Amino acid sequence: MKKLAFRGAGFLLALAPLLLFAQRKVTYVDPFIGSEGDGHIFIGPSAPYGMVKPGPDNNKASNSGYVPDLDKPLYGFSQVHVSGTGGGPKYGNITVMPFAGDFTSIKQESLRSNETTQAGYYSASLAKWNIQTEITTTAKAAFYRFRFLNHDNRKAIKVDAGDFLGEKAIPDSREAQMFVGSETQVLTDSSVCGYSRIRGGWNNGTAYTVYYYAVFSKPFTSFHTWQGEQLTAGKKMQVDAGAKTGAMLFFDNSNDEELQMKIGISFISCAKAQQNVATEINHWKFDNTLQQTQQQWENLLSKIDIGTDATADQKKMFYTALYHTMLMPVDRTGENPLWDNNLPYYDDFYAIWDTYRSSHPLITLITPSRQVAIVNSLLNIYQRDGYMPDARSGNCNGRTQGGSNAEVLIADAYFKNLKGINYSLALEAMLKDAEVPPGGNEEKEGRGGLVDYNSLGYVSTNYVRAGNRTIEYAYDDYCLAMVAKALNRKGEYNRYIKQADNWQNLWRPITDHGATGFIMPKDAAGKWVDSFQCSVSNGKIAYVPYNNPLAQDWPICVCWWCGFFYEASSWEYSLSVPHDVAALIRKSGGNEAFKNRLDTLFDKDFYNVGNEPSFLTPNLYHWINRPDLSSTRIRQIIHKNYNSSRSGIPGNDDSGAMSSWLAFHMMGFYPNAGQSYYLLNTPWFKQTTIQLENGKQFIIKANNLNDKNVFIRSATLNGKPFLLSWIEHSDIANGGELILEMGATPTTWGTQTPPPSKS
Amino acid sequence: MKKLAFRGAGFLLALAPLLLFAQRKVTYVDPFIGSEGDGHIFIGPSAPYGMVKPGPDNNKASNSGYVPDLDKPLYGFSQVHVSGTGGGPKYGNITVMPFAGDFTSIKQESLRSNETTQAGYYSASLAKWNIQTEITTTAKAAFYRFRFLNHDNRKAIKVDAGDFLGEKAIPDSREAQMFVGSETQVLTDSSVCGYSRIRGGWNNGTAYTVYYYAVFSKPFTSFHTWQGEQLTAGKKMQVDAGAKTGAMLFFDNSNDEELQMKIGISFISCAKAQQNVATEINHWKFDNTLQQTQQQWENLLSKIDIGTDATADQKKMFYTALYHTMLMPVDRTGENPLWDNNLPYYDDFYAIWDTYRSSHPLITLITPSRQVAIVNSLLNIYQRDGYMPDARSGNCNGRTQGGSNAEVLIADAYFKNLKGINYSLALEAMLKDAEVPPGGNEEKEGRGGLVDYNSLGYVSTNYVRAGNRTIEYAYDDYCLAMVAKALNRKGEYNRYIKQADNWQNLWRPITDHGATGFIMPKDAAGKWVDSFQCSVSNGKIAYVPYNNPLAQDWPICVCWWCGFFYEASSWEYSLSVPHDVAALIRKSGGNEAFKNRLDTLFDKDFYNVGNEPSFLTPNLYHWINRPDLSSTRIRQIIHKNYNSSRSGIPGNDDSGAMSSWLAFHMMGFYPNAGQSYYLLNTPWFKQTTIQLENGKQFIIKANNLNDKNVFIRSATLNGKPFLLSWIEHSDIANGGELILEMGATPTTWGTQTPPPSKS
Repeated sequence: MKKLAFRGAGFLLALAPLLLFAQRKVTYVDPFIGSEGDGHIFIGPSAPYGMVKPGPDNNKASNSGYVPDLDKPLYGFSQVHVSGTGGGPKYGNITVMPFAGDFTSIKQESLRSNETTQAGYYSASLAKWNIQTEITTTAKAAFYRFRFLNHDNRKAIKVDAGDFLGEKAIPDSREAQMFVGSETQVLTDSSVCGYSRIRGGWNNGTAYTVYYYAVFSKPFTSFHTWQGEQLTAGKKMQVDAGAKTGAMLFFDNSNDEELQMKIGISFISCAKAQQNVATEINHWKFDNTLQQTQQQWENLLSKIDIGTDATADQKKMFYTALYHTMLMPVDRTGENPLWDNNLPYYDDFYAIWDTYRSSHPLITLITPSRQVAIVNSLLNIYQRDGYMPDARSGNCNGRTQGGSNAEVLIADAYFKNLKGINYSLALEAMLKDAEVPPGGNEEKEGRGGLVDYNSLGYVSTNYVRAGNRTIEYAYDDYCLAMVAKALNRKGEYNRYIKQADNWQNLWRPITDHGATGFIMPKDAAGKWVDSFQCSVSNGKIAYVPYNNPLAQDWPICVCWWCGFFYEASSWEYSLSVPHDVAALIRKSGGNEAFKNRLDTLFDKDFYNVGNEPSFLTPNLYHWINRPDLSSTRIRQIIHKNYNSSRSGIPGNDDSGAMSSWLAFHMMGFYPNAGQSYYLLNTPWFKQTTIQLENGKQFIIKANNLNDKNVFIRSATLNGKPFLLSWIEHSDIANGGELILEMGATPTTWGTQTPPPSKS
Repeated sequence: MKKLAFRGAGFLLALAPLLLFAQRKVTYVDPFIGSEGDGHIFIGPSAPYGMVKPGPDNNKASNSGYVPDLDKPLYGFSQVHVSGTGGGPKYGNITVMPFAGDFTSIKQESLRSNETTQAGYYSASLAKWNIQTEITTTAKAAFYRFRFLNHDNRKAIKVDAGDFLGEKAIPDSREAQMFVGSETQVLTDSSVCGYSRIRGGWNNGTAYTVYYYAVFSKPFTSFHTWQGEQLTAGKKMQVDAGAKTGAMLFFDNSNDEELQMKIGISFISCAKAQQNVATEINHWKFDNTLQQTQQQWENLLSKIDIGTDATADQKKMFYTALYHTMLMPVDRTGENPLWDNNLPYYDDFYAIWDTYRSSHPLITLITPSRQVAIVNSLLNIYQRDGYMPDARSGNCNGRTQGGSNAEVLIADAYFKNLKGINYSLALEAMLKDAEVPPGGNEEKEGRGGLVDYNSLGYVSTNYVRAGNRTIEYAYDDYCLAMVAKALNRKGEYNRYIKQADNWQNLWRPITDHGATGFIMPKDAAGKWVDSFQCSVSNGKIAYVPYNNPLAQDWPICVCWWCGFFYEASSWEYSLSVPHDVAALIRKSGGNEAFKNRLDTLFDKDFYNVGNEPSFLTPNLYHWINRPDLSSTRIRQIIHKNYNSSRSGIPGNDDSGAMSSWLAFHMMGFYPNAGQSYYLLNTPWFKQTTIQLENGKQFIIKANNLNDKNVFIRSATLNGKPFLLSWIEHSDIANGGELILEMGATPTTWGTQTPPPSKS
């Protein structure tokens, strides 16, 4: 990660004179967006792709540790979080809690007030004791500034190495995090260290260890440490005996309000955590660290300028969306406890199934070098752990939701010309996914149901998630085939380009709501499965009509992960063939039938933008030469589902997936991940300027854009007429200017040639 | 592990008056046996099943770190070793080296002299500087006593956290250990700590971390620490940056010769390593620790008394064999970094394929409670890691050689009536092995080639080690079936008792050297494979005649692990059907043909006692009612292959496998592991007394035994005639007396009823 040494305003002005009169982009970021409802956004401070994510915790069952309810007291601020996730929580390690007054209990909770956030900043008042807590952070160390405003109370800080999110009463419950061990050591009269070792969680991971080192701006005058239920005054070391440990640190009762704490974390050792503090925050100037981290964000956010015409709300939505996209995966280079420490190493792919479609393409656009490092870290994981992850967290692969989607990332990198990746190795890694079943735990990595898929051409109902697995493997195979072809590996190309049609093996010519042809369950003998019988909780028998494309077997009949489709219906999944929309249209009965099908999907609310498999769907009108309808649908979807409020994200943000989908569409183009082009839509901004990493600039102008002039009537690229409704990545990467002439009605622009399809 | 608090000679005498006039068994142990030749025995001190195994290292390619050559200088004493293993080395972590004189190099090596060993004790003189090094150990901490006999030299100790065995020039070479990270910290002027994090090695394991804490009896006066190539005076902390670290500690130049060091290790943390020292060695009395550890050994070894008639050599061979059996697996309870710290946890199953036949049955005989803990640790591993190990080292399953042999251990425990094991869970774990393929890495756990085996009834030549996998899975299935039957799981019983015949699917009626019927390769279409073509290193084509049961394809044509059989020929493997010798005899042409076959095997040297699949073979004469011939063969084999010299073990001892085979046969009985009985043979001792853990005693008397009277002519059990050539475990466990009347010729004793067979 490049870091800007921040040397004060003078330096900044010299560096970026163009920013002189513009408000800094970082000020538009509102970390609260998506923190209410299902967004599950982490609201604490984070550096871009930052390893440490300190933030408020008031609900151990919450994925972010946080729920907005003001009547739910905070119990601490833990140092590691993920953002926007669902399922069982992960992390929530090393909880810090300031408190004041007489010490009567290890448990210390307070309601909060005056909660405010910025990119890189969090602040709240702990009402019970009137303690203001501010937090900022660097990549690997957090900085806390406490103000104890009730002067007559004794100050204290609790550091809990036994705490974590998502514990369940029954050990080894599905997706529960489970305690392994912890250690707490008082090093000096102003520093403590230790670790928390936890296993399980959403991805059913093996044990991971979060080490910490915390140092205070003032000495504590006494302390207790604990192990299990046993609290002991003055005991400096609580050795790991498989019990929870922590420290209560008591500071003198002076009138000095302020107490600061720096806390570094590491996945390597306590000493490394201490070194992370020393390297990243070698001072006690909270504001300097805050400015430095905000400048890092500013440098990234200002890669894209959306002009002065954008409304405040649009700016807030757009830059917060960019911000969300750069929270995860997390850069753990130098913090890998599993192999060569200094290779690129990213963790918290959570999950690539969610992020391959829009998050990674957005990272590729803003900082291709970052995406190169991420892809290389996938290949390093393949070399050492045997498979690229589809999801990974806590240094452990798991779990796959649908396909082995690293294939898409590799194809996306290859066809967007990213350099510095060993594509032969990448092909080998993709072939491993495609040819070697992952073994007993088919949720961990690779392709579940692969034996079926490779022998029958589809995943039969002998396996869970057979529907989405089949169609996703078909697209994975397409990505593999195209990379194989590019590398002159004809044998692999021939095999996999055929397999890319495998989605058709589950295509059943059923008609529903006027649409014909749906992905439907088939058994291993090749027979369509019409209905599925299951016992439901009240002991009665239920039938799921599998031949009804709106029916779903989960979560009532079978577990969340055990249905024929994952998270969506056949109405949605049957349109998820990103490599061969032309064939999809033919099989659906041609352009007109396909238009009706899409209209029904949207008009009847069979579509859910919160499900990633449907991310591309509003753009499918492009393939019937109606890009105007794509833009209309996208605008409707955004208006209906997104806004700048705290509940402004539809469904879990999924590590930035929902946010990056929005960001692309606000700019007026959207990737078909794994392929080289973007679909052009109506932008939200009159001018979008992308500062490319190669030093070039790409500008999109939407002349005459206003609330009514929402149709692209014509376009030019670098002054020449541009008739296509899609644009190649190379056209953007080479820099230039795309000028769209907007009007109140569509024209024939973009209606001559549909975007690419396999067939 | 029970520990005896040693309180001096008076206490000991009071405790064990019967030992008053007998030499202590521990004095018969000679750790040098098996240290030369292929035995690969670890010669350093170890507690029973001890986690720390400090010992001399002079060859990084040696499995034990050690080669006997006196012209090969020692480079240090590392704290973790395995014993008797083959393949790529594992461990060799945290190397300590005393040296003296001017400090010119981190590398410090010396020839050794006056090397002596006892159970729990090692001593050698480092000739270069005339430093005597003595080592003893507890379970988790080692105790070193150095004597610097050249008084005019400066004393120094090197503690190297970057060192380990089996590094190779090419990263990720097969079976190479690879460096991940290390840390070194000088804590006080008499203590240092740190860790070594290593991955790979024989079982291709994930990273494991050996933490250490070392404390000295005198302060050092100065020190250097290093990281990579950079040595720095007085630098207290070398933080893990993915480079090798260590410390050079310099002591004053007084005339005081003696310097002692205690070094604890841990797989949890440095603090735990320190605690292990404090808990286990809270003094500076080297001799006390030595006596305590030797008393632990004495307590275990004296469970079996072989009478006063046994020769010195016999005592040495027998008690050293017992000793070797109790070096591994290693008790790591309380040291598990992966899950609940306080569950029974054993590591270094290296491999169960080697040890299930004789080592574990011997452990079961001496201390069934220990075997219960070991089996429970396998079940814990199953619950958390997904499969029971066939091999495990460094907290990671891998690799399987043949079958999933934990099945045999579970059946052995069940049919020997071991209590405190959840056999329903155990059946579930066995079914996982039998039904769920282990995925991409078929060397890690479970059953490789399972898809073939479960569909074809044998493993085809599409998979490596197809021959031994097939016959071993058949026996695993038998073990599973018998436990299922006992648990009233009829469905599983019916399925697996049929599969127990699967070895017959590879039985080809070929005749060779007069014997008919051999396990032979078959392809997936069901066709016998007559020959195998391969390119050898000189570029020429070679053919392996697969239809010749003496032919072997490894290691010349294919890799060690890639042949049709693992480590042995079809002549050997075709007799490895421990559950159905009766069927084997029928298929071989009846009793006479089978006798000829066995005679040919032994007379023509087609048999190799160093291969575990042949462990039971000399006892197969029992099934043709000729137990006298079994005893004759066993005596021949022992005389030819075993002795009390340093090269007195045939082949790798394999964690005590070879040794425990010997120990059983010297007592005159041998287990058919996984089943409830032992085969009776001619003992080597006139009286063997086994002190059972339940407080009872079982005595075997061999009246009139001498060099000529080597045949059992009649027998009584508890005074009643005993006609069978085998004895049930329950007969031993209930206590009692088996009296064998020996003579120079066999009688009809044991010839009426052959031992049990499936059919």
